[in-house]
Amino acid sequence: MRDPPIITLLSDFGLRDPYVAEMKAVILSICPKASIVDISHNIRKYDVRMGAFILARATPYFPNRTIHVAVVDPGVGTARRPIIIETKRSTCVGPDNGLLMLSAQKEGISHIYNIANSKYTLKQVSRTFHGRDIFSPVAAYLARGVPPSEFGPEISDLVKPSFLEPKIEPGRIEGEAIYIDDFGNIVTNIDSENLKKIGVKEGNKIAMKIGGKETALILCRAYGEAALNVPLAIIGSSGFLEVSVNQGDASRVFKVAEGAKVIIRSELTEKDSRVQT
Amino acid sequence: MRDPPIITLLSDFGLRDPYVAEMKAVILSICPKASIVDISHNIRKYDVRMGAFILARATPYFPNRTIHVAVVDPGVGTARRPIIIETKRSTCVGPDNGLLMLSAQKEGISHIYNIANSKYTLKQVSRTFHGRDIFSPVAAYLARGVPPSEFGPEISDLVKPSFLEPKIEPGRIEGEAIYIDDFGNIVTNIDSENLKKIGVKEGNKIAMKIGGKETALILCRAYGEAALNVPLAIIGSSGFLEVSVNQGDASRVFKVAEGAKVIIRSELTEKDSRVQT
Amino acid sequence: MRDPPIITLLSDFGLRDPYVAEMKAVILSICPKASIVDISHNIRKYDVRMGAFILARATPYFPNRTIHVAVVDPGVGTARRPIIIETKRSTCVGPDNGLLMLSAQKEGISHIYNIANSKYTLKQVSRTFHGRDIFSPVAAYLARGVPPSEFGPEISDLVKPSFLEPKIEPGRIEGEAIYIDDFGNIVTNIDSENLKKIGVKEGNKIAMKIGGKETALILCRAYGEAALNVPLAIIGSSGFLEVSVNQGDASRVFKVAEGAKVIIRSELTEKDSRVQT
Repeated sequence: MRDPPIITLLSDFGLRDPYVAEMKAVILSICPKASIVDISHNIRKYDVRMGAFILARATPYFPNRTIHVAVVDPGVGTARRPIIIETKRSTCVGPDNGLLMLSAQKEGISHIYNIANSKYTLKQVSRTFHGRDIFSPVAAYLARGVPPSEFGPEISDLVKPSFLEPKIEPGRIEGEAIYIDDFGNIVTNIDSENLKKIGVKEGNKIAMKIGGKETALILCRAYGEAALNVPLAIIGSSGFLEVSVNQGDASRVFKVAEGAKVIIRSELTEKDSRVQT
Repeated sequence: MRDPPIITLLSDFGLRDPYVAEMKAVILSICPKASIVDISHNIRKYDVRMGAFILARATPYFPNRTIHVAVVDPGVGTARRPIIIETKRSTCVGPDNGLLMLSAQKEGISHIYNIANSKYTLKQVSRTFHGRDIFSPVAAYLARGVPPSEFGPEISDLVKPSFLEPKIEPGRIEGEAIYIDDFGNIVTNIDSENLKKIGVKEGNKIAMKIGGKETALILCRAYGEAALNVPLAIIGSSGFLEVSVNQGDASRVFKVAEGAKVIIRSELTEKDSRVQT
Repeated sequence: MRDPPIITLLSDFGLRDPYVAEMKAVILSICPKASIVDISHNIRKYDVRMGAFILARATPYFPNRTIHVAVVDPGVGTARRPIIIETKRSTCVGPDNGLLMLSAQKEGISHIYNIANSKYTLKQVSRTFHGRDIFSPVAAYLARGVPPSEFGPEISDLVKPSFLEPKIEPGRIEGEAIYIDDFGNIVTNIDSENLKKIGVKEGNKIAMKIGGKETALILCRAYGEAALNVPLAIIGSSGFLEVSVNQGDASRVFKVAEGAKVIIRSELTEKDSRVQT
């Protein structure tokens, strides 16, 4: 027997209201064999950028042919288009507001379609809940094997999310805190390739300016290499540099929110090396 | 192959404790092919009315023959009866305290049974957790095809939830805020049929008294028709009139809680039309 | 057709971040037929003891051959070992820090293996997320039928969690609040067997010292036997003595946190019996 098709869901709906269940109900009505996996429904309300980041982190781990439905959609019911993005190994369904692009670009975009064929939406489409009325039935029909091109005309001019690339100079990287996770880990947009360019390796001490303060941190291999409640730098499970506190909350310790500037220097001054040991 | 039977769960158990998992474990022990869908486990503790509302919103979207288990059950272990309601297209399982009735009435009640046959419950039934010990095994046996009449005697005198119907007069509707969702949208018990009766259509400006204040709101077709952070009225995805704030939290702006009175007038006075534009 | 293998997940990851979804993605990539059930992802961060308690409560209700993956893992990436515990009826996968032991001991330990075979982990194993990189793929291969002994050498010296046994004297039990649930029920480590030893039966009034105060409570059979908002004692659905408030929050009323001492006396003095009626 063929494996059940996987449909993932991501939204800013939270887990109290019936909205997520209504989406699942619509999907199972059309494609009863679908295996539905929640990525997250606790995206900050209307925060398309956070949704894009979480989606792009999770999608690489899903099998080929997974269908991803994402709904962080402040423009629901207005002129913004409902779209399908076909990538080399998956299909994304959601609003054309940048939410799907970070993930789709990583997976390699093949074709983009503007959902227009009302044959594949609920009969009554509300103006406030396209997650249930458009995106869920479209995903379910995709899971049943309807080809993406059936849903509407191919398009190419998409809204792109604005993610900053880090600025790299000799001995110095200027980046950004792109995500604070539930443990308080501060995830930056700086990856290990960036660090290599300024000569930083695991085990090195680096000077990091974050939340206004300069700190000297060791680039550790595991949280437990630092003592309890001591801050450290680490390449996290997303491949990005993170600032953490062993069994503590780094975002509180450094008083840092998403979007904060992060500056790294590979060469420590006399002063830096006295800051922390 | 037949489609897997769907069992939905709704409760006030939250998602931290092991209670929901224990219910799923019992279901899968009896009916391993069941596809279990959470409607919500974040119903306010002991709030039967909120549970009834959320359940009744979600159930219409599920396929025929879905089995709904709902447990908001402050009277667990006392004389209140465990029941099965067979409707035209689904089956509901839970306590006889009004929780199931709103949904069951919408789907059309066929028969009601008092669960009494200990053959279909766990061997040891606790006095504090019938969700696990009675409702879950009953749902799983229903999913395996045991007919509802096998579980106990037919009954007819059920506890009904108290939902207010709106009062409609020429040019005026008096209703209630029945639910505040996680976005802060204020869902009322007034539907578009009610609005038609007093001559209100989308695009119209209406006078609304809510949270003690009179406001003039446009009945919009999409949140985005109002400017950012501006209040609006809209027929929400449940078919009811909602008061919203575009990308904001209406319940905070209007300082309104569930149960608050909502009065609508179709005719604006001079004063009303100056309130908001 | 064979029933789908069940894999349960427990963690302190919360439901906002993509971590749980990444684990599910890895599992479904290796074993697409797996039926994944969340036990809880809201274990207090780094609280191995709480994780062990919730896991041990839920596992007895799952069918034979269920695979349990648990990740509360402050020592991730350090010397602590990744392990598989084979019990009489299930298999547990997680870190060797005590998390799995309470459940495994209850189910009856057969063999323990140190996960060492990199054939069954992700190609790139991060130092911060073994839940995704080691435990999830191992569970998925177990679900596909790979025998536990394939994953690494058998071991025997495990970390055990420190759960206090209650001290029982004639007419007196000294125990502990081991868990406060989401309703505010105070779950103790005292079970009905312990109570029998000092002659306490349901319906009896007992003297309980909790949160510094002495109170006389009736050992009820159902929450509803006490009046609204009145405290009571009850054998909860885990078989342990709980202190509850009918439709209220006992942990607030008694100002008690996990770890608090609980003393029970079967004989009431004059004074006790005046405290509460």
